[in-house]
Amino acid sequence: MAAVTYELIKESKESNARLGKLHTPHGVIDTPVFMPVGTQATVKAMSPQELEEIGAGIILSNTYHLYLRPGHELVAKAGGLHQFMNWSGAILTDSGGFQVFSLGDLRKIREEGVEFRSHIDGSKHLFTPEKVMEIEMALGADIAMAFDECVSYPMDYEYTKLAMERTTRWAERCLQAHHRADQALFGIVQGGMYNDLRAISAKDLVSLGFPGYGIGGLSVGEPKDLSYQILEATVPLLPKDKPRYLMGVGTPDYLIEGVIRGVDMFDCVMPTRIARNGTVFTSEGRLTIRNAAYKEDFTPLDPNCNCTSCRNYTRAYIRHLFNAGEILGLRLTTYHNLYFLINLMKQIRAAIAADSLLEFRREFYRRYEGKAND
Amino acid sequence: MAAVTYELIKESKESNARLGKLHTPHGVIDTPVFMPVGTQATVKAMSPQELEEIGAGIILSNTYHLYLRPGHELVAKAGGLHQFMNWSGAILTDSGGFQVFSLGDLRKIREEGVEFRSHIDGSKHLFTPEKVMEIEMALGADIAMAFDECVSYPMDYEYTKLAMERTTRWAERCLQAHHRADQALFGIVQGGMYNDLRAISAKDLVSLGFPGYGIGGLSVGEPKDLSYQILEATVPLLPKDKPRYLMGVGTPDYLIEGVIRGVDMFDCVMPTRIARNGTVFTSEGRLTIRNAAYKEDFTPLDPNCNCTSCRNYTRAYIRHLFNAGEILGLRLTTYHNLYFLINLMKQIRAAIAADSLLEFRREFYRRYEGKAND
Repeated sequence: MAAVTYELIKESKESNARLGKLHTPHGVIDTPVFMPVGTQATVKAMSPQELEEIGAGIILSNTYHLYLRPGHELVAKAGGLHQFMNWSGAILTDSGGFQVFSLGDLRKIREEGVEFRSHIDGSKHLFTPEKVMEIEMALGADIAMAFDECVSYPMDYEYTKLAMERTTRWAERCLQAHHRADQALFGIVQGGMYNDLRAISAKDLVSLGFPGYGIGGLSVGEPKDLSYQILEATVPLLPKDKPRYLMGVGTPDYLIEGVIRGVDMFDCVMPTRIARNGTVFTSEGRLTIRNAAYKEDFTPLDPNCNCTSCRNYTRAYIRHLFNAGEILGLRLTTYHNLYFLINLMKQIRAAIAADSLLEFRREFYRRYEGKAND
Repeated sequence: MAAVTYELIKESKESNARLGKLHTPHGVIDTPVFMPVGTQATVKAMSPQELEEIGAGIILSNTYHLYLRPGHELVAKAGGLHQFMNWSGAILTDSGGFQVFSLGDLRKIREEGVEFRSHIDGSKHLFTPEKVMEIEMALGADIAMAFDECVSYPMDYEYTKLAMERTTRWAERCLQAHHRADQALFGIVQGGMYNDLRAISAKDLVSLGFPGYGIGGLSVGEPKDLSYQILEATVPLLPKDKPRYLMGVGTPDYLIEGVIRGVDMFDCVMPTRIARNGTVFTSEGRLTIRNAAYKEDFTPLDPNCNCTSCRNYTRAYIRHLFNAGEILGLRLTTYHNLYFLINLMKQIRAAIAADSLLEFRREFYRRYEGKAND
């Protein structure tokens, strides 16, 4: 029995959307699902208890960050990432690929792997597929991602092809090196903004037989239409009985569009990052709490939200907390934004079940984009 | 019926310690009690729900800060401080006296009141006893403190006398100006490090007939022995049927010594401030979590503590959170430090009930100071 299996529950009659269950060693997760990001073994400003409260079943954590600090050996000694951070739900670790490629001048890519300098102390390190598997196995998440090369946007065809082919070779080496029975290893489809490269990548990875597939290299600055078009071309090439994970995506509109195109899993740091800057999602669009307009506004962040923040605190109070630099302010906005997305996914799942997702999308956009466009 | 009444439950056979109940419009509080400080209408890094969890029945908030930001009128519009910050327990507001005198060059003291410049934007303001009463009534705490002048340490006899006498005149003006039936106004005994001035201050304030008395101007840099000696001389001059509040004190040893000398209420920012810097109280003394010694220490902050932080997280993890600059780190240490003090007060109350407070003190110091002296 594989560590993680995907159970297809229902295919939508209206679109490529589908309902499923992801069976992991740490619980069964209803998909489509949004995974909050806990970069450094903590979802910023949240406690694991609060994550449970809002219904988060799976979170993401970052291999690159945990490798540098506190170190994967330490996490292993603590009994693995779940125990280290006191999180009993499921965890997915990324491969560090996106992070090291984002380092720009601080990294050198070779066939063997990527040499890079730490953003913390400038020390030199080498990530190879084998090394990344060693780290991810030590961290012990339920799902590990293969080490991949994510190209920036825009990127020419030649280099994108080269990086995509290398990603496939690295995926093979990851499979070879990975040997943890209670952990699933997902491959990552690359190929930039070129449909034919995406097709080759998908075909080659699928032939390697992963228990799930990431779609990487999207939401890297390209226009949304292009993004959606790549997604439409790529998803149908992935097997129906395996989960599809669109990496780094988490705006409400992109979640809806991704689900409609057949995506099962999402993650993004943006919802928690903008929360810490005082911006929240509401059913009527984004709201920036520092605005003077909210000075004497004694209504909740989102009148249509039922989260702890919205049930107990006013815009005026949260605005005061932000102006005064108080931690409770960003706790409340972070909690709300994550609740909002997790609740959105719940509504999306209900809409798929009722075959009314397209209607849901229309209604959501009507209210959401009336005020602010994401 | 007064807004706040003190019910004397038991006087210790061994010392001046006593058990009591403080009846307030927002609950009955067992005394002696430690009050966490929520300077800007929030106890830094904590939620009201967490304060309730750890058993905090009363918190303190700061008039000076709330007057400047968000403004007492806004708080009044929100329905008062309790509703503004979503706290259903009791609240005490200080008078801003300590804060404005701490401004040094930024303030000018006259008989009328104190002119000062805001630490936020340099704007000019005047605090008079009447103005402070207006602010505190608008905030609507259960207990308001009279506007007083707290002298620094060391301070000569002449000036201390002058400030003490002015404090008494201001206390009279506060009484005149205060007219909120659901709020108690406490007077503040001053007189610096001079027993005879403390005696005059206590006698004059008591003759004004307050429902409770603050003891101000201690823990301002003087040696602890001197502090304790002033306390010993002052407390017996206060009426037995009224609560006594030692202002700005919150180290474990000072709490114990204060209780033994007849104090019922305490507050201090230090426990939460040091927590945010990674220092926690433990039953074996203070512990600084950033120390390399805790890198692979998978035990709780305090093995003898039963708080959420200690039941769920290790020193190694909390150290990682501090090193990584993660908010959850200071949430966990703040929670622990407040729990520690509130639990200490609980143990103190049990010891008074059992007439074993002196034995409790010996045992506490034996363990606490073996490792670190507070």
